[in-house]
Amino acid sequence: MQLLTKLFLGTTLAVSVSGDVLAQSPFARPEDAIKYRQSALFVMGQHFGRIGAVVKGERAYDKEEVARNASIAEQMSSLHWEAFAPGTDKGNTRARPEIWSNPAKFKSAADKMELEMNKLAVAAKAGELNAVKTQFGETGKACKACHDDFRKKE
Amino acid sequence: MQLLTKLFLGTTLAVSVSGDVLAQSPFARPEDAIKYRQSALFVMGQHFGRIGAVVKGERAYDKEEVARNASIAEQMSSLHWEAFAPGTDKGNTRARPEIWSNPAKFKSAADKMELEMNKLAVAAKAGELNAVKTQFGETGKACKACHDDFRKKE
Repeated sequence: MQLLTKLFLGTTLAVSVSGDVLAQSPFARPEDAIKYRQSALFVMGQHFGRIGAVVKGERAYDKEEVARNASIAEQMSSLHWEAFAPGTDKGNTRARPEIWSNPAKFKSAADKMELEMNKLAVAAKAGELNAVKTQFGETGKACKACHDDFRKKE
Repeated sequence: MQLLTKLFLGTTLAVSVSGDVLAQSPFARPEDAIKYRQSALFVMGQHFGRIGAVVKGERAYDKEEVARNASIAEQMSSLHWEAFAPGTDKGNTRARPEIWSNPAKFKSAADKMELEMNKLAVAAKAGELNAVKTQFGETGKACKACHDDFRKKE
């Protein structure tokens, strides 16, 4: 159930009163929430990918650079969950309905990814390349697990 | 001048060798750089906008929430400049050619925005609403100044 409330600059805010963890959205419009989560994940993916290039030996290892990329990816990993609010399953999105029909499983996968991204940031800051490589693989698995279960194929 | 170099997962990296501050891009493709800066600015704008709702009295003031929004906006404000690399002026972008024809002026406007976003984060953390309101206005001016000079009208 949604209650439309006047909020910001003449636009409306979709506020769900279903009472679950995804119930309240700070976004003016559903399409803003969709664009926000895609934006946050894209920025995260770019920085994660730069570490991947180092892991694959395609880019020289620079401790500070890898630590910065991992730190940004970690920060981004915590941003987008609130943007999977109810009512944001339609439109320009590959989000699968299971996100909202099984929110506990989705939250668990989300938390796992965030945890693994945190571990990557810790490893990158410590600066031991082999540990970064190992953790990069673990973090990648957490990304893939969530995509497999909750993102539609293109 | 661009040199295309194999970098990551079978994609290519555009590396400019023109030698200026925007010369080297960590992005695989120009469209990735464009999407990255739009994504970073969109996330920034969303968090800045949430503070705007408080400033306008449309949302109740919550010190922790405003501080979090300002902190995220500040972090995002530092991300996108490297994405204005040479060769990223075409395609799905409203970037004006002056970004590349007058990079010193663009960098100055960019630095100004980042500085004002930093001041907003400091004010928000201190938690004095009137100071937040004043600084919100100053930061908004810095956003607008850059848009006026460097972004095409829709």
